[in-house]
Amino acid sequence: MSRFRLALLNPNTDRRHTVAMRGVALEALPEGSRVTAVNAERGPSSIESEADSVVAAAEVVGLMRSTEPHHAYLIACFGDPGLEAARELTDAPVVGIGEAAYLAAGIVAKRFAVITTLPRGVPALEDALQAHGTGRRCIAVESLNIPVAEQGSHHPDTTPAIVEAGRRLAAEGAEALILACGGMADVARSVERAVGVPVCDGVSFGALLAHAMWRCGLRTSKAGAYGWPEPIAYLNMPDSAPSREG
Amino acid sequence: MSRFRLALLNPNTDRRHTVAMRGVALEALPEGSRVTAVNAERGPSSIESEADSVVAAAEVVGLMRSTEPHHAYLIACFGDPGLEAARELTDAPVVGIGEAAYLAAGIVAKRFAVITTLPRGVPALEDALQAHGTGRRCIAVESLNIPVAEQGSHHPDTTPAIVEAGRRLAAEGAEALILACGGMADVARSVERAVGVPVCDGVSFGALLAHAMWRCGLRTSKAGAYGWPEPIAYLNMPDSAPSREG
Amino acid sequence: MSRFRLALLNPNTDRRHTVAMRGVALEALPEGSRVTAVNAERGPSSIESEADSVVAAAEVVGLMRSTEPHHAYLIACFGDPGLEAARELTDAPVVGIGEAAYLAAGIVAKRFAVITTLPRGVPALEDALQAHGTGRRCIAVESLNIPVAEQGSHHPDTTPAIVEAGRRLAAEGAEALILACGGMADVARSVERAVGVPVCDGVSFGALLAHAMWRCGLRTSKAGAYGWPEPIAYLNMPDSAPSREG
Amino acid sequence: MSRFRLALLNPNTDRRHTVAMRGVALEALPEGSRVTAVNAERGPSSIESEADSVVAAAEVVGLMRSTEPHHAYLIACFGDPGLEAARELTDAPVVGIGEAAYLAAGIVAKRFAVITTLPRGVPALEDALQAHGTGRRCIAVESLNIPVAEQGSHHPDTTPAIVEAGRRLAAEGAEALILACGGMADVARSVERAVGVPVCDGVSFGALLAHAMWRCGLRTSKAGAYGWPEPIAYLNMPDSAPSREG
Amino acid sequence: MSRFRLALLNPNTDRRHTVAMRGVALEALPEGSRVTAVNAERGPSSIESEADSVVAAAEVVGLMRSTEPHHAYLIACFGDPGLEAARELTDAPVVGIGEAAYLAAGIVAKRFAVITTLPRGVPALEDALQAHGTGRRCIAVESLNIPVAEQGSHHPDTTPAIVEAGRRLAAEGAEALILACGGMADVARSVERAVGVPVCDGVSFGALLAHAMWRCGLRTSKAGAYGWPEPIAYLNMPDSAPSREG
Amino acid sequence: MSRFRLALLNPNTDRRHTVAMRGVALEALPEGSRVTAVNAERGPSSIESEADSVVAAAEVVGLMRSTEPHHAYLIACFGDPGLEAARELTDAPVVGIGEAAYLAAGIVAKRFAVITTLPRGVPALEDALQAHGTGRRCIAVESLNIPVAEQGSHHPDTTPAIVEAGRRLAAEGAEALILACGGMADVARSVERAVGVPVCDGVSFGALLAHAMWRCGLRTSKAGAYGWPEPIAYLNMPDSAPSREG
Repeated sequence: MSRFRLALLNPNTDRRHTVAMRGVALEALPEGSRVTAVNAERGPSSIESEADSVVAAAEVVGLMRSTEPHHAYLIACFGDPGLEAARELTDAPVVGIGEAAYLAAGIVAKRFAVITTLPRGVPALEDALQAHGTGRRCIAVESLNIPVAEQGSHHPDTTPAIVEAGRRLAAEGAEALILACGGMADVARSVERAVGVPVCDGVSFGALLAHAMWRCGLRTSKAGAYGWPEPIAYLNMPDSAPSREG
Repeated sequence: MSRFRLALLNPNTDRRHTVAMRGVALEALPEGSRVTAVNAERGPSSIESEADSVVAAAEVVGLMRSTEPHHAYLIACFGDPGLEAARELTDAPVVGIGEAAYLAAGIVAKRFAVITTLPRGVPALEDALQAHGTGRRCIAVESLNIPVAEQGSHHPDTTPAIVEAGRRLAAEGAEALILACGGMADVARSVERAVGVPVCDGVSFGALLAHAMWRCGLRTSKAGAYGWPEPIAYLNMPDSAPSREG
Repeated sequence: MSRFRLALLNPNTDRRHTVAMRGVALEALPEGSRVTAVNAERGPSSIESEADSVVAAAEVVGLMRSTEPHHAYLIACFGDPGLEAARELTDAPVVGIGEAAYLAAGIVAKRFAVITTLPRGVPALEDALQAHGTGRRCIAVESLNIPVAEQGSHHPDTTPAIVEAGRRLAAEGAEALILACGGMADVARSVERAVGVPVCDGVSFGALLAHAMWRCGLRTSKAGAYGWPEPIAYLNMPDSAPSREG
Repeated sequence: MSRFRLALLNPNTDRRHTVAMRGVALEALPEGSRVTAVNAERGPSSIESEADSVVAAAEVVGLMRSTEPHHAYLIACFGDPGLEAARELTDAPVVGIGEAAYLAAGIVAKRFAVITTLPRGVPALEDALQAHGTGRRCIAVESLNIPVAEQGSHHPDTTPAIVEAGRRLAAEGAEALILACGGMADVARSVERAVGVPVCDGVSFGALLAHAMWRCGLRTSKAGAYGWPEPIAYLNMPDSAPSREG
Repeated sequence: MSRFRLALLNPNTDRRHTVAMRGVALEALPEGSRVTAVNAERGPSSIESEADSVVAAAEVVGLMRSTEPHHAYLIACFGDPGLEAARELTDAPVVGIGEAAYLAAGIVAKRFAVITTLPRGVPALEDALQAHGTGRRCIAVESLNIPVAEQGSHHPDTTPAIVEAGRRLAAEGAEALILACGGMADVARSVERAVGVPVCDGVSFGALLAHAMWRCGLRTSKAGAYGWPEPIAYLNMPDSAPSREG
Repeated sequence: MSRFRLALLNPNTDRRHTVAMRGVALEALPEGSRVTAVNAERGPSSIESEADSVVAAAEVVGLMRSTEPHHAYLIACFGDPGLEAARELTDAPVVGIGEAAYLAAGIVAKRFAVITTLPRGVPALEDALQAHGTGRRCIAVESLNIPVAEQGSHHPDTTPAIVEAGRRLAAEGAEALILACGGMADVARSVERAVGVPVCDGVSFGALLAHAMWRCGLRTSKAGAYGWPEPIAYLNMPDSAPSREG
């Protein structure tokens, strides 16, 4: 069997974050795997609002078209912007890191909680959990009131806030935690140690999930909703319908 | 009270359709109302796939930024692309024509059905109905297997297919119909006459709904999910956060 | 087009309240509109219990029969008693003020809260929200423990309790508020100013919603659930089935 | 322990039906039980529309007030009109025959179906099943297109239609049937024999359920939603709030 | 009619508890009823974990096979282990005490709460309520952090903890309480008196519910899910499929 | 990193099937992985009824106790019997093949269908899908009316029935298929080729999912529902609570 080749698409324009997530994916994947990591070339440097998310989703469509075919794709932004559109543009499997984190939490725990950045993002996460079917297992989505830009191991002062929220949620019945921000990924292990419950990181597990799909030959269905896009005329930009070689 | 000024934003690039929808809105609104109708300047000419929809949603963000403030906004594409993002970018009320059609059907009927263009779009519409809370009242989403481009009064050969589907759905318990495609709007009345149940058109009712919101002073909440976007840096394009003058 | 004629039906017997709601509706509607406001001639003067509500619903049926045909009808009690029965008795559109408030809140906010009078009414409101499909968007139904009879601008001492509840709910994530009692309608604007989030009033918006339905020709479906009542014999009172002239 | 005394309240005015249901209840209850059977003195003779149901519900409130206290109450109309209002007006247990039939079906079968009279009633029954929490276990609500007035053993020509519908539903996965019309109750056993799956009759089981509640001392909660009605002034009719002697 | 004969099956091995529950059932049932009470002969003496529950469920299958036919069966452990399997093994009605408590609470109250032993059991109870369809009516499942083994009237020191939890839940809107542990059954009445809301006991009501099913001739459906088990070969133990004499 | 060691637990007693599933898992897993495959030593040779399933679940508890610790566990029966109990008995990740198939289908398709053996099993599968949160995405659970014992590549005459059902479901909107019986696993690829939509096999994907969990260090939470069982006394069999060395 050939070596696994994963395309990691970061919907925002933060190159440093893209590089860091590539490292996380490479470390998780079986030896010899290759990861192509690209990010949007225009749009927001991080995603807090729905307006940011909508712009980023359109960039994902562009990245899918400009990236050569891979064995599998990972949309590496917690809100999974453009995930379903990406599935239309390939017959390889496509995984989102938000979706991956929900699946992982559902296997290690019967009840979990989500920690996010700003209060404004809480309803959208609740809606995503509901649409994903896992809403009933999430006891709370809690925000730190600290933006994406100040998250991560290079902002050591924000980690205690995550730990404090995690301990409070665990006391209320959260058996696992999800950190709903790619920028928090590199503190996941230290939060896990401090709180004492599993902390689910969508980047490493998402990469392995994409690998698992590929290994057993599961490909995106081209019948129905994820079929190749119809040949619609696009004005002032390339058509969305790729050639069917995938 | 000043005259009502509505901005109608068509997320796709089909200018002819934009002009037609402006006419429908003007006819519905109280005399003296003004309607500014704009459409995307890039992207798909009609929306069938999720990839089309995602590109169109990003265009809505751009249109919101480039259009001067109005009393209310109507997103005039049945899938309501970018609707929630648009709400972040103004404190005036914003209505989507899909949402408007669901609300109208819920008032005139206890059970309704939705008729759409291609089978691929059925699951997305089912999900939208579910997210909107009205899924249980919709007995079926049925596709004609005829694309958007061949809908409307200038394609008289497709109307009989809508009528036939409508009659079948009415026999199965649909007390009202929703035509889930802006292109079908101008045959709504003839379908209503032929089938004998109300046919809900999101363009005319959506314009009146936006007017109703404005008349009683209801404005988009700026607390929480629809608050003004955070000031995120955007690469190679204008920032999404508008100045707060709205 | 002829002038809009709305019938406002107050299911309880409080004439003063009926007159006040007529004023609110007239002020909201386009100039030249006419509003016929009637109230129940027997039954409770305000509605707190399910027993009150059930008696009031039967009065709505009587009012529908005794009122001459109008362009649209507004059932002006927050619990929407008799709303679906009223829809059977006309083919004009019928709107409830509770329903109208839920729709308005769903357009201006992603999450809202409801403030009501007595604790006993909370479960019924939760059930109504659930049946309406909007339950997931309501973060809380909170009671003031103050009865209907002590609500409104002529009881200035109760307004601070509404404002205090509103502020607490806004802090917990309510992006808009609904005042679930017609008697609170006339303090809506002052609560909105004090709390800083939109406050949705079902009377003014409901009147405009009914107007919107009429303007675009949407009529209650006579197929299925809202069809004219069957010709059942009624003992000791007029039959419920009206003549079909509507 | 004293002898069980049940009040059976028929919300419609059909005295013959009231007498028949009293017989069914007496036969089901332990020897020595007593059943007081009363019916509405005004309103519809059978219930097909929501307008009929709303009028009947108000009659239930009147019957609760005019009937002397009993050990338990049975609201004997499949739509359970006024059931929750009746619970406010007593601290004895109150059971509805529709509710009873749902509970029985949920014990004898994992999936069931409901057979009703007219198509117009189907959505209301679907909504009642959903509100009751048992919607997912009901595979279909099917109508015979035969009104209440033509149901029952004295209309032997309608029984074959019930049997035919029952067989079709059983073939589609219905493990039990509910006949959603009191008028069908007396053919339940013959339908059961002909179709070969349990047929749940709300009158006999409802009477026994009321008896079971009484035997183990379970009384309607007077805290919260089912508390005694508030002392509201009633115009032109007796107040709904009974004296607290119950 | 012959005298009612109930088989009470305790899935755990605690004989003392079995005897106590038999007494409760006998006291509730009409005079002359007979109760055969058996318990598992192997497995856990009380059930706290899912592992305990799974072992107990298998014991219920064995008890159903080794117990001679009765008029009805009561599975006497709050988690209802093996309830659906038991229904396959007889055509008599089978009731679970957890299920019975939920049904009783749904008749006496619009909102209720559940009190259980250990925090680990809360999610399983929430899931059971959801699967049963009554989840939305339960405002909270609260644990005492006291194991089964220390519950009941012979541990008088734990009753105050139940009363305290009950009062707090009643203040939050619980109109009735369910004690989710057979071991708490004998303090139900004293908790009811102390808290002032109905306390639902699944043993006495479950026995009466089984009696009610039997009295009106309702038997477990043998079509579909609860049909007699297929004749599968069992290794090292008796086959699960009983002879069809039931 | 050490070589991955998976314990595959077959809850039934069919040794041949156990060996076949071990082969499938080994082929899917990265080279060098080891798979210990064990099956129940007592109980049913295949699982069709709930009674079979309940007995098998208890065997899973025994297998968990008698199997030495592994990196991860796969419960290899589509109904996932004993899955949650198994999670209590280890802190390594535990995956079920039914659960795995649902997750895979949710990644490759927006709508899928399930094909199973006997009609009796349909409601239990529908309930499992609902509990898992993916019910809305499954358009149908269809049975072949052919028992487990006649499934698989050594019964070539049953494959055409699967293909025919698959084609019919695909025509109705199923974008992927799940074969809900381990015995069908070895015909999955030929069904996929014949029908033209992805066919999800829980054994191979489940093994890879377990591997993915292990690779990124995700372990079963020991807080709350999946905590180590309480130390309950077991009669006539070993206690369920293992020593805490895991």
